[in-house]
Amino acid sequence: MNDLDARIRASFDRQTMMQTLGASLASVTPGQVTITAPILPTVLQQHGAGHAGLAFSIGDSAAGYSALSLMPEGAEVMTVEMKINLMSPAIGERLVAEGRVIRPGRRIMVVAVDVWAETGDTRKHVAMLQGTMIPV
Amino acid sequence: MNDLDARIRASFDRQTMMQTLGASLASVTPGQVTITAPILPTVLQQHGAGHAGLAFSIGDSAAGYSALSLMPEGAEVMTVEMKINLMSPAIGERLVAEGRVIRPGRRIMVVAVDVWAETGDTRKHVAMLQGTMIPV
Amino acid sequence: MNDLDARIRASFDRQTMMQTLGASLASVTPGQVTITAPILPTVLQQHGAGHAGLAFSIGDSAAGYSALSLMPEGAEVMTVEMKINLMSPAIGERLVAEGRVIRPGRRIMVVAVDVWAETGDTRKHVAMLQGTMIPV
Amino acid sequence: MNDLDARIRASFDRQTMMQTLGASLASVTPGQVTITAPILPTVLQQHGAGHAGLAFSIGDSAAGYSALSLMPEGAEVMTVEMKINLMSPAIGERLVAEGRVIRPGRRIMVVAVDVWAETGDTRKHVAMLQGTMIPV
Repeated sequence: MNDLDARIRASFDRQTMMQTLGASLASVTPGQVTITAPILPTVLQQHGAGHAGLAFSIGDSAAGYSALSLMPEGAEVMTVEMKINLMSPAIGERLVAEGRVIRPGRRIMVVAVDVWAETGDTRKHVAMLQGTMIPV
Repeated sequence: MNDLDARIRASFDRQTMMQTLGASLASVTPGQVTITAPILPTVLQQHGAGHAGLAFSIGDSAAGYSALSLMPEGAEVMTVEMKINLMSPAIGERLVAEGRVIRPGRRIMVVAVDVWAETGDTRKHVAMLQGTMIPV
Repeated sequence: MNDLDARIRASFDRQTMMQTLGASLASVTPGQVTITAPILPTVLQQHGAGHAGLAFSIGDSAAGYSALSLMPEGAEVMTVEMKINLMSPAIGERLVAEGRVIRPGRRIMVVAVDVWAETGDTRKHVAMLQGTMIPV
Repeated sequence: MNDLDARIRASFDRQTMMQTLGASLASVTPGQVTITAPILPTVLQQHGAGHAGLAFSIGDSAAGYSALSLMPEGAEVMTVEMKINLMSPAIGERLVAEGRVIRPGRRIMVVAVDVWAETGDTRKHVAMLQGTMIPV
């Protein structure tokens, strides 16, 4: 675990929402962060699929930490706006949110996330996010 | 509790995510649904404010049920896409998401939500959502 | 014509896109700017309605000038992101884009726009925009 | 020029907005359509860069034709919603909007577009769109 990984992980561990959702930090590289979460019985919508808020929550955190991974130590980041397109019901064993920085500006960072539902070795593209982060 | 209210409430009660977030259905009228949730210690981001996923989750459900409230019994609704602008940190006793239908089309429903952070008698506008629902 | 109106109008007149679309500045008050444009034969999509780019273009300018109207003289503003939901085909004599500032932050301004298609005395809600402006 | 290309081109030629912007159809393959437009003196914002409405307009058409390219002959497509993040001023000789279908559903098509500003052999990523198309 290098410095970048440790720094992101320390912030992630303070996000109690991530623990509530059962989410974990799967990988951290500069500009790219992946978060995964099981589709627990506690995070469903009315038809038994994962709630849109599950894909959004781990997607938003993956996007935020992608941005933070490109900023100097001690920096903090905040979501200005985020848009999610939902393409398939979140059905499977787990969701995987792969966040990345598209445009690392000094004042504005544009981020994108793909969210996959995985079961065993197969994965389906269930959501896509595009948003804006700012340093705070 | 009238028929509409009972119908929406029955669906809401099946959304386990709402229970996990401590959310409750505050009001249901045709085309307008309000959901409220305390800002619990279990739903925070790294600075101690409510996670963006909290405002999104109750906002998305408020939007969806606003749309469902205008549809015939037995109908179901799904989020196609949703965009959230976050205007202030979610700090306070509770969040209140007021959803409404802007355009009740047969194939496409355009919805909007305002999210407020309330403490005692005061409220602050913390987020705004605009999205699309479809009948399924 | 007061100072605010003159200042916005001077900037508007430099937007050659507005002239190309035949658009004009209909009203300017602090935090609210309205732009109108005829649905000319030169701005259509393939079915003869106004192109989505017409509603977007005057909507984006109305949003930007709403934000600029709350900023000190000499300030400039830029669109960070903008989302449009299209609710009905842009059919009629003219489009009217009513922009307003929802949240006038120092670093980030959240803006919203309603776009109407008007024919004589009737109007139809054809589009809705929600976006982010920053001072530059 | 094959059948698909001819079909898309015929529709594109009916979009008078594209002619007004000086846009042309650069390439058509199943699920991917590219539109290019010079940054003419007639499509600028107040600082002399291309107006956000230029990137949006050709981006929206590129997205729509990407969707149409996967649909049966005689089908038509409409924009439900579209979000654009603007990353850099549109400065250069021309804009190039590369649209693609992310999720080709029967009822809903999710589309994405990257917009580049080109000068000679160099290009800069100036905007990114993510949206929803429906067959009509």
